[in-house]
Amino acid sequence: MVVACASYADGRRVADVPIEELGRWLDRDGQFVWIGLNEPSEECLSHIQRVLGLHDLAVEDAHRAHQRPKVEEYGDSLFVVLRTVEREDGENETLFGETHLFVGPRYAVSVRHGCTHSYAEVRARCEAAPQLLKQGPGFVLYALMDCVVDRYFPVVDCLEDQLGVLEDEIFEGRAGRDATERIYGLKRELIGVKRGIAPMIEVCNRLARFGVGLIPEETRLYIRDVYDHALRINESIDNQRELLTSALEANLSLISVRQNDIMKQLAAWAAILAVPTLLAGVWGMNFEAMPDLKLPYGYPLALTAMAGASAYLWSRFRRAGWL
Amino acid sequence: MVVACASYADGRRVADVPIEELGRWLDRDGQFVWIGLNEPSEECLSHIQRVLGLHDLAVEDAHRAHQRPKVEEYGDSLFVVLRTVEREDGENETLFGETHLFVGPRYAVSVRHGCTHSYAEVRARCEAAPQLLKQGPGFVLYALMDCVVDRYFPVVDCLEDQLGVLEDEIFEGRAGRDATERIYGLKRELIGVKRGIAPMIEVCNRLARFGVGLIPEETRLYIRDVYDHALRINESIDNQRELLTSALEANLSLISVRQNDIMKQLAAWAAILAVPTLLAGVWGMNFEAMPDLKLPYGYPLALTAMAGASAYLWSRFRRAGWL
Amino acid sequence: MVVACASYADGRRVADVPIEELGRWLDRDGQFVWIGLNEPSEECLSHIQRVLGLHDLAVEDAHRAHQRPKVEEYGDSLFVVLRTVEREDGENETLFGETHLFVGPRYAVSVRHGCTHSYAEVRARCEAAPQLLKQGPGFVLYALMDCVVDRYFPVVDCLEDQLGVLEDEIFEGRAGRDATERIYGLKRELIGVKRGIAPMIEVCNRLARFGVGLIPEETRLYIRDVYDHALRINESIDNQRELLTSALEANLSLISVRQNDIMKQLAAWAAILAVPTLLAGVWGMNFEAMPDLKLPYGYPLALTAMAGASAYLWSRFRRAGWL
Amino acid sequence: MVVACASYADGRRVADVPIEELGRWLDRDGQFVWIGLNEPSEECLSHIQRVLGLHDLAVEDAHRAHQRPKVEEYGDSLFVVLRTVEREDGENETLFGETHLFVGPRYAVSVRHGCTHSYAEVRARCEAAPQLLKQGPGFVLYALMDCVVDRYFPVVDCLEDQLGVLEDEIFEGRAGRDATERIYGLKRELIGVKRGIAPMIEVCNRLARFGVGLIPEETRLYIRDVYDHALRINESIDNQRELLTSALEANLSLISVRQNDIMKQLAAWAAILAVPTLLAGVWGMNFEAMPDLKLPYGYPLALTAMAGASAYLWSRFRRAGWL
Amino acid sequence: MVVACASYADGRRVADVPIEELGRWLDRDGQFVWIGLNEPSEECLSHIQRVLGLHDLAVEDAHRAHQRPKVEEYGDSLFVVLRTVEREDGENETLFGETHLFVGPRYAVSVRHGCTHSYAEVRARCEAAPQLLKQGPGFVLYALMDCVVDRYFPVVDCLEDQLGVLEDEIFEGRAGRDATERIYGLKRELIGVKRGIAPMIEVCNRLARFGVGLIPEETRLYIRDVYDHALRINESIDNQRELLTSALEANLSLISVRQNDIMKQLAAWAAILAVPTLLAGVWGMNFEAMPDLKLPYGYPLALTAMAGASAYLWSRFRRAGWL
Repeated sequence: MVVACASYADGRRVADVPIEELGRWLDRDGQFVWIGLNEPSEECLSHIQRVLGLHDLAVEDAHRAHQRPKVEEYGDSLFVVLRTVEREDGENETLFGETHLFVGPRYAVSVRHGCTHSYAEVRARCEAAPQLLKQGPGFVLYALMDCVVDRYFPVVDCLEDQLGVLEDEIFEGRAGRDATERIYGLKRELIGVKRGIAPMIEVCNRLARFGVGLIPEETRLYIRDVYDHALRINESIDNQRELLTSALEANLSLISVRQNDIMKQLAAWAAILAVPTLLAGVWGMNFEAMPDLKLPYGYPLALTAMAGASAYLWSRFRRAGWL
Repeated sequence: MVVACASYADGRRVADVPIEELGRWLDRDGQFVWIGLNEPSEECLSHIQRVLGLHDLAVEDAHRAHQRPKVEEYGDSLFVVLRTVEREDGENETLFGETHLFVGPRYAVSVRHGCTHSYAEVRARCEAAPQLLKQGPGFVLYALMDCVVDRYFPVVDCLEDQLGVLEDEIFEGRAGRDATERIYGLKRELIGVKRGIAPMIEVCNRLARFGVGLIPEETRLYIRDVYDHALRINESIDNQRELLTSALEANLSLISVRQNDIMKQLAAWAAILAVPTLLAGVWGMNFEAMPDLKLPYGYPLALTAMAGASAYLWSRFRRAGWL
Repeated sequence: MVVACASYADGRRVADVPIEELGRWLDRDGQFVWIGLNEPSEECLSHIQRVLGLHDLAVEDAHRAHQRPKVEEYGDSLFVVLRTVEREDGENETLFGETHLFVGPRYAVSVRHGCTHSYAEVRARCEAAPQLLKQGPGFVLYALMDCVVDRYFPVVDCLEDQLGVLEDEIFEGRAGRDATERIYGLKRELIGVKRGIAPMIEVCNRLARFGVGLIPEETRLYIRDVYDHALRINESIDNQRELLTSALEANLSLISVRQNDIMKQLAAWAAILAVPTLLAGVWGMNFEAMPDLKLPYGYPLALTAMAGASAYLWSRFRRAGWL
Repeated sequence: MVVACASYADGRRVADVPIEELGRWLDRDGQFVWIGLNEPSEECLSHIQRVLGLHDLAVEDAHRAHQRPKVEEYGDSLFVVLRTVEREDGENETLFGETHLFVGPRYAVSVRHGCTHSYAEVRARCEAAPQLLKQGPGFVLYALMDCVVDRYFPVVDCLEDQLGVLEDEIFEGRAGRDATERIYGLKRELIGVKRGIAPMIEVCNRLARFGVGLIPEETRLYIRDVYDHALRINESIDNQRELLTSALEANLSLISVRQNDIMKQLAAWAAILAVPTLLAGVWGMNFEAMPDLKLPYGYPLALTAMAGASAYLWSRFRRAGWL
Repeated sequence: MVVACASYADGRRVADVPIEELGRWLDRDGQFVWIGLNEPSEECLSHIQRVLGLHDLAVEDAHRAHQRPKVEEYGDSLFVVLRTVEREDGENETLFGETHLFVGPRYAVSVRHGCTHSYAEVRARCEAAPQLLKQGPGFVLYALMDCVVDRYFPVVDCLEDQLGVLEDEIFEGRAGRDATERIYGLKRELIGVKRGIAPMIEVCNRLARFGVGLIPEETRLYIRDVYDHALRINESIDNQRELLTSALEANLSLISVRQNDIMKQLAAWAAILAVPTLLAGVWGMNFEAMPDLKLPYGYPLALTAMAGASAYLWSRFRRAGWL
């Protein structure tokens, strides 16, 4: 689907371009066309490929999903693959999508796959800053990358919050039976997110440092900014992963501590019940000569002795912290 | 065994070449010979070596199995070792094989070892795209590498599925006694697969980036594509390994949790039975003066007391979640 | 808030500069202005940006907190982000702040965020050593970085002390229920501190080794000194993290050892009580012909036998170390 | 001890050289001397040093054992240290030795330490291939390195077999009390072997890639082959180490699983015995009015009830898999 | 304290130099002064600084302890920081000290901090080999570094011995309650030693490979030797750390195994005592019609039955390995 297609000159939108007339707009000096596509049909993509002269391999990649984030140079044009993330409200799952960018001297094409948010806001923000947009298609590349990377922040923050909740539950002893599963699930999510952001660091680095003709010097400063954001997200993920590993171990420790507690209680109650049982057994023996059985208050005394022994044990275990 | 041997000019098959007449076809300008071998006999291989002038060391390697994936330059020819994987349907085991490639300016030879799938499909696909095949033997090298690497995907997906099944079993409490063994087995498989793919990354990288005369600029773009696939497979394996490590720990945690549960039940039932036993002991004592023994309904009252105590304990343990 | 703003010539303070007249002081040869800001208002910052000609991106970063420590070159000026740490007395928490530095040929600006200690002492120390300060704004950069890095030492020492206390508690068996939580908390703190210091190593390295025009050769030696300090702090953090991981495992081991001890006690006491209970049961049987029941001293003998059996078991368990 | 000393020209043995006349043979063009020593005496070594002009440091190293594998260039001569391994049949221990090689334009000296296998076979194989041996002392260096590295294969295979046996024992539940010790022992052995092979990778790499005058281009191809073998051995060791770590954890998991099983049995049998004990207690009470005691078949009925209760419990536990 | 101060020419000691007349000796061609200091006073150090023209930063570092091993170039002079270790006999603790070296074209100064062994033996050994010492101050640098690094060997060996003792105790089941603590303590020591040796590798590498004017080509060979020693120590520490991690886990495994054993014994004895208790309960019931109670040898038969049941259980548990 073609979301938007417009021509820009000097940082300002000149005209909306019908996709069929794309060819006519490409040879105008000082202008470039910015096309936004969302899961385009095959014909649409091959039309664009023919007009813009895109490389077969790049277009093939743009069809197939599940590419690794990367940047490829084909002659004087760039092909960039980015992985997008989003979390729907109320849904406890991260959704991954892909965005492919083709950037040439006179065009910038974005192709969204499995990503519900459009890049309309990016276009709006760029059009609001013509002094920047006039840097050309390279700036469009920056603006889209910046948007993709910034969408990682709420996802990472959300995972961080979940970790915080888990920590509180674990250390306040409220961790339910599913704590282990949730730790594991969080780790799985983080690995997925990392898979998206880690190669993006390399992509930004290549675009920012190594001379790529399409990216003017001024725009590189901006891409370095995206690079810093990607680094920060990546660092945050790594820290969370390390904490999760420790949380898993800490949880195991606390389960063992609780086991010790239960065992102590078990032992204490066993003793508290076993002692009067023994006494009852003693006074239940059938010896002929058992003077205590004949005491007038033998029975209440015996009950008192049993209760006393149990109470004594109970208080000792109590003091020792076993109960 | 010679599977196929044909000469190509301008991307089209010119003629099938009998292996004995190989020499006559090698000195024709603008042509190259593509030979496919499957576990060739020693004579066959030394015949080809003599005609093509292959290096002793390379041919020695091609005889012996168990090479590490690598690329070696001998003068103006290349020797590439690849590790192949396959999984037969219904069999829960990954089979490893090897493919050795000799590529020179006028020939491309593939030697399969312990790999049941032939490369006939690769040849068919190449012949269907003469505009690409006319890039020469370098393109044949790419096509074979692409095929070998793409065969890793179903294997890795299959292992990923097994991990998913294991996770479900573990966290739904259905993990049998063999969960640990299966986690371990999966890890072993992954290490084996990684052993095949990881050095292939380096092989692709060297072929794609460092100038090797045999590989024209255009073909390098294609090899970079294989490189990306290898990277992706490798990344997926690493992620699975990390998850398996966590799964092993999570499983241990859950075993401990279950141990706690059993211990709580053990303690609860011990108490529920010990209390009436104690009471029975008390009323079994032989004191002379035990007025309760003389109550008309003493016995049923005693039984009621015992049952009541047990029931009370049962309900308390129930509420506490121990039962 | 403008904390201080003064012009320096030849290492000596020439005059206090009102921030409004900043522009007039910037074009005096051989002089530079050193401005200290603390959470400046937006107008103040944009005034300074306009006068000094700072880059948009740098100023934007200076507004937003949560930057990663980094150094950026914009033309002939430098933008440095540092993370600061402090620990208030009595508070068991590390507070993180940020300091942004803009350094150009004729100015040095420091912007503090969330950091309670001012840099007045740095200014005082620099003014006390005019022979060094006359190296120019680069030396101011060094002095501020040195101050920021040196403030990590007490924090790291404090964490090290806490680790020592924890170790003692764990290995002397005094580790309470919260040992696991405290180990985890310490790890979290260390990860936070590491997040501040690790990128600073790279910052110092870039400033010390790679030719940056603003930093004279002589000043680089000093920055290498800061680099060494950062390395040392980082190394200390890494070592503590490794020790914490071991401490967590050691704690788990000791919990298991203690579990063994409890189980041994449980078993020993169960046996000590079960044997006389069995004996009482035996003599409580109702066989008609039980000659021992008729012994004149049967009862005391039986009690003695029971006590003796228990005492024997007790002493054996004692010797075996189970009690 | 001088094992062998001969002069070679054009790849063929010219004459056996008495070690005393070594000097006379060194200045013959197109010839080189190959000396094999086994734990030589100090005089012998210093005689050779004097004649060949070896560097003090190299000879000092050759005296002392326990060097790290390395290659050093002294002027136009090379000093190579290799670590050798062997396993005697029936002995479950890897023996480590060292071999030092001195190679110059007209000599190749091998010095064995603590290595029972001589290099006679290497010399034999070289003499059988004069077309290769005529490459000079560099080829002798290759042949010795190849032999040393190839002797790692049986050792690594043997350790791999032991790991396989351990895995089977662990997962078939046959793992004895010493499984942990054997895993640990295997890890220790692997660390030892790794210590020998890992630096050898670097040695081969330096000799194969970086221009060393003594090693002709043709010989480098051969050394690259040794490099590949060393890489493969190293990789195999790393994989085994990772598997051992997992095996240790898996073993711990299985011990915990077994603990759960024992605890379940313990609980089940406790219950099976406690219930009839309780019943016996009940009927052992001394209430006056206990009508069941007067039933004509009371006793057998009681016994039946007790047996029935136990049997019922037994079958329930059986079904639940606790017994 | 000035330990020694002498002037050397051509590798031989020319004269002892009073520290006050140091200046007069520095401008003599072909001579250099070697000064040994031990925790010098501030005046002494600043006197030497003034005379030799040392850099402020280096001297500041030499005052403060706790530097990281490093090498710094100041103009044509070198400043080297080394960390020293020693273990006093009978004391189970590694002591860390520091040695700072200032080396210039005509002087070599060593400053010891917290290190009880003097470098007198180094001076003696150097003076005994004038042919080496005449290489100049660079050789003195080598000799001191060699001495410092070699003192790591006994410390590392001692730690290795302790690990061996621990392993024996753990696997022979003799590991006391403090095994965990000792493993942890050993790890702490190793981290400390590693902190000393690891940066020294880098120091040696820089001195040996990168052209530093002060170090003649010949001396570099010697420093490469120190580099090898440092590598070897570092490797040994890494291996020990890995083994310690495994030892901690192995110990935990064995504690769990022992727990299983105790639980089995507990269960076995509980059953052995519970069965006769049950029988006694049965025969203690008060049914009117219990023919077995009237058997003439009922009592001894009952006792026999009880003993028999216990003996049977005992032998079964014995055979099953539970007792």
